[in-house]
Amino acid sequence: MTPAERLAALRNQLAKAGVDGLLVPRADENLGEYVPPAGERLAWLTGFTGSAGLAIVLPAAAALFTDGRYSTQAAQQLDPACWTLRHIIEQPPGAWLRENAAGLRIGYDPWLHSEAMLGRLKSAEVTLVPLAANPVDAIWANRPAPPAAPAVPHPLAHAGRAAEDKRAEAAALLREAGEDAVVLADAHSLAWLFNIRGGDLENTPLALGFALLRSDGSAELFMEPQKLSPETRAHLGNAVTARPRTEPAAALTALAGKAVRVDPEVTPAWFAETLRAAGAKVISGDDPTRLPRACKNPAEQAGARAAHARDAVALARFLHWLSAVAPQGETTEMMAAERLLAFRREVPLFRGESFPAISGAGEHGAIIHYRATPASDRIIRAWEAYLIDSGGQYLDGTTDVTRTVWTGPGPAPAPDLLRERYTRVLQGHVALAMLRFPQGVAGPYLDTVARTALWQAGLDYDHGTGHGVGSFLSVHEGPAAFSRAAKPIALAPGMILSDEPGYYLPGHYGIRIENLLLVKPAARQVDQVKDFLEFETLTLAPYDRGLIVPAMLSPAERAWIESYHARVFAEVAPHCDAEVADWLQQATAPLD
Amino acid sequence: MTPAERLAALRNQLAKAGVDGLLVPRADENLGEYVPPAGERLAWLTGFTGSAGLAIVLPAAAALFTDGRYSTQAAQQLDPACWTLRHIIEQPPGAWLRENAAGLRIGYDPWLHSEAMLGRLKSAEVTLVPLAANPVDAIWANRPAPPAAPAVPHPLAHAGRAAEDKRAEAAALLREAGEDAVVLADAHSLAWLFNIRGGDLENTPLALGFALLRSDGSAELFMEPQKLSPETRAHLGNAVTARPRTEPAAALTALAGKAVRVDPEVTPAWFAETLRAAGAKVISGDDPTRLPRACKNPAEQAGARAAHARDAVALARFLHWLSAVAPQGETTEMMAAERLLAFRREVPLFRGESFPAISGAGEHGAIIHYRATPASDRIIRAWEAYLIDSGGQYLDGTTDVTRTVWTGPGPAPAPDLLRERYTRVLQGHVALAMLRFPQGVAGPYLDTVARTALWQAGLDYDHGTGHGVGSFLSVHEGPAAFSRAAKPIALAPGMILSDEPGYYLPGHYGIRIENLLLVKPAARQVDQVKDFLEFETLTLAPYDRGLIVPAMLSPAERAWIESYHARVFAEVAPHCDAEVADWLQQATAPLD
Repeated sequence: MTPAERLAALRNQLAKAGVDGLLVPRADENLGEYVPPAGERLAWLTGFTGSAGLAIVLPAAAALFTDGRYSTQAAQQLDPACWTLRHIIEQPPGAWLRENAAGLRIGYDPWLHSEAMLGRLKSAEVTLVPLAANPVDAIWANRPAPPAAPAVPHPLAHAGRAAEDKRAEAAALLREAGEDAVVLADAHSLAWLFNIRGGDLENTPLALGFALLRSDGSAELFMEPQKLSPETRAHLGNAVTARPRTEPAAALTALAGKAVRVDPEVTPAWFAETLRAAGAKVISGDDPTRLPRACKNPAEQAGARAAHARDAVALARFLHWLSAVAPQGETTEMMAAERLLAFRREVPLFRGESFPAISGAGEHGAIIHYRATPASDRIIRAWEAYLIDSGGQYLDGTTDVTRTVWTGPGPAPAPDLLRERYTRVLQGHVALAMLRFPQGVAGPYLDTVARTALWQAGLDYDHGTGHGVGSFLSVHEGPAAFSRAAKPIALAPGMILSDEPGYYLPGHYGIRIENLLLVKPAARQVDQVKDFLEFETLTLAPYDRGLIVPAMLSPAERAWIESYHARVFAEVAPHCDAEVADWLQQATAPLD
Repeated sequence: MTPAERLAALRNQLAKAGVDGLLVPRADENLGEYVPPAGERLAWLTGFTGSAGLAIVLPAAAALFTDGRYSTQAAQQLDPACWTLRHIIEQPPGAWLRENAAGLRIGYDPWLHSEAMLGRLKSAEVTLVPLAANPVDAIWANRPAPPAAPAVPHPLAHAGRAAEDKRAEAAALLREAGEDAVVLADAHSLAWLFNIRGGDLENTPLALGFALLRSDGSAELFMEPQKLSPETRAHLGNAVTARPRTEPAAALTALAGKAVRVDPEVTPAWFAETLRAAGAKVISGDDPTRLPRACKNPAEQAGARAAHARDAVALARFLHWLSAVAPQGETTEMMAAERLLAFRREVPLFRGESFPAISGAGEHGAIIHYRATPASDRIIRAWEAYLIDSGGQYLDGTTDVTRTVWTGPGPAPAPDLLRERYTRVLQGHVALAMLRFPQGVAGPYLDTVARTALWQAGLDYDHGTGHGVGSFLSVHEGPAAFSRAAKPIALAPGMILSDEPGYYLPGHYGIRIENLLLVKPAARQVDQVKDFLEFETLTLAPYDRGLIVPAMLSPAERAWIESYHARVFAEVAPHCDAEVADWLQQATAPLD
């Protein structure tokens, strides 16, 4: 089917469903960042494969809304005879609906939108109509089956707390709030709460499903029965009842008259709509597992340290290989990323990449979400900047690390301006890493700390400074972030966040330096009255000494870098072979 | 009348008015920070004279809510037999009402509460009832008359823009939004929009009143007729109709069917209630003069520079006097503040203090809002820290400056720990002053920049880093602020804000260093793609060299301080007598 045929078939379906139009988001029923093939309705309908977007189909018009990251890609992938491309921030879909769909009935699949998302589209001019079945599914021939990887117990040694304890704590929160139950629609919450992991998505070990947790600590887990082996069922215990993923309706209807918490940001609207229709009282509130999940317990913290220490060996082997072994003038971006993945595959407890590696040489490094494809892949040339952002999923922790290096051969003859900018990015990265701050301060207010060295030179980067990272879970985990766009959630001990300032000169090069930081209590000092927090750096990999301008560093910055490099050598070299250890010694030697 | 008698008389009035209780805020009809004596109902009723508070009177209970700054003072001033004291954040009045006034009818004066304030008190349990007359006024014998100082034209040379232009611009904003008029209840908005100033309050040159601006640029000004001389009426022009302050009802009723903007944060609820009753459509929106008022025009910027240059002469004379002339062991905090005021009175265009000076020696410096009274006043002793925070209202600008000095005699033998902390406060102050940042960044995200030097030592200060300052208007002006508690309003050229980090060791000493900063465009640099902003420091006064530890400073910090001191000497000394100029030369000499 051509894009035009798909659109025509869909409009035919809409007429049958009694609506004039349809919202098609880039989302599946779990509303997560990653979507399994069965949920890629937007890509099937439009041809656009970016990770964020919303299509709106009207009788005589169809528009796709996406953000600046994807405008070029969307323009290439969409059939302009069928689709109009819009910038989701500058030309928001709500305004477009009011202008183009006044008086119309626009359908939506209540499984694919949160009430918060729908609220942003609502207006007096347009009627939004929930549909019982998704019209795309009716015309999508050969739609992939939903993922069905088994859900397996996450060992207590790595999880650190029994699922029963976690449920009891969340249930106590519900009782305090006078609520009888909470709907859990975020698959990360299920993984954390029940101490299970799965394989339904490419880079995140999730078992997709839903749950209902009651204020007595009992729960229903809505997950396909074939995913749950007898071992997993035994692990879940008697207080957890498993039911098919598609059958939560009866459980919700049974809550008539009860107060049920629903997180309006992460829960499909279907749940609140069904609860209200059943006569339950829907209370908007945060997913109660979100904050405890973000604050890693001692076992998870120990796991993160161990996973990073092992990951560091793969990184050292890779950086050595890139600098000294990779065939000059032959190695491409994709080959480099594959080489790093091969080193990681040799690391114990490795379970896969935590996201597809960004391996960008020269001008490709300036594309913040670059992914090398056979069409874009190119040789990493001599004497240019090369950026690699990658991470691993280990049974005991999730890693995410970026290094930017100047390619050989020989001592680095990088241009002075590039070295100055690398040093400013590094200064911001170090300023955040060595910061102490009072308990209660939120991440958005620390974003600035990583930018001031760049700002003084009139430079900046158009992304947040850092995101939360899960524990053998998503590499992008809320609610805390070093970003002015994020909600101001106070940082708390046990949170893990990335520290990744950058600088990008489009068409020329990109610089990004990323470590993961663990939030922990700071030692008390003289006359201190508040509790302070600080960061422990988890990632262990050398910065490119040839790109650092030592004269720009303050004594404190220099001391931090020297001490970090000494730690990298001391902790990583013993696990490397002699050649890599020698290389690492040079790479972590004191700055000139 | 005793406090008990006042409360009994009030309860009697409430019964007559048909309500069970009453809200008594610390506010007058203009809802500003400062209240004229006629509006001090809370102080009259309770005896509490702090600048922030809310009383709630119930049939058998009465509570006063105020914040941590005033808990000691309120405990001393309230009669515990009549009043319960509550912390307004930790024990919020809305929750107290729900617990203690369920089912009751609680009256409020709709002139003394914004709809935003009322919204925070509303609940299903309590009925809030607007009253036609304030019950306190009925029993307050000898209530002072409302202020009646004349409103005078603010010369165009200082205002920089004709009132007619300002009205036309604000009216265009209304037309763009499809609105017919806006209620202006903030007296600062009137002063700015009509280019008038007054004398109704102690430290802010306001003429209290209200206005209605229509989308054709015409306006009604509700202000007592006797305040408006023929000259002022001529200045206002034909498009502005003056009416008594107490008579806006007819004008609002005439807006039946029209769309009228009301700022829910700064407008008494009476306006929206009256408009709705008249059949007008009330639209919540920002006071349209707020942002243009905050962004000073070139004439106002020039005025601010000139006012600060003249104010600096008074400051230099004062600091010299304190260091070399004031009788040792005899000079008190109040005497010092009076001496500074006397020097300011000799400065051209001086119109009064912009707030009551904070003059605190030793342990008094640690009280953030300290005000020396005959009861607390004490001698400024040898070898202690002394903090003075003060400002002037000049016809061309408003100043606000804080310096902390180590008292003599002789070279400063300040303790090392105090010098280290002074230096950290100064590092934060300088870091903000020399910052460059992209256009679009809001003040709350820059607050951090002034704190990190203190944070690294486990220290902090419990106030914002800085507030907006008006142009011959309030020394505390919104909407921009360097404070995590403020809304994230993007900083824009022409804004003036204070930069005042501090450190306070209760019972021992306080350190605060404050300059005013003017936001202005930064020069473009290599490869710069965004517009950047930077600060011009307006305040000109030396830091105490004896309290600075030069070894703690980075080269950039040291260079900034040396350059600032050189500028202070060059710009201020020529206007001082020889003795003060000599002292200033030493005070601004290069650091050791």
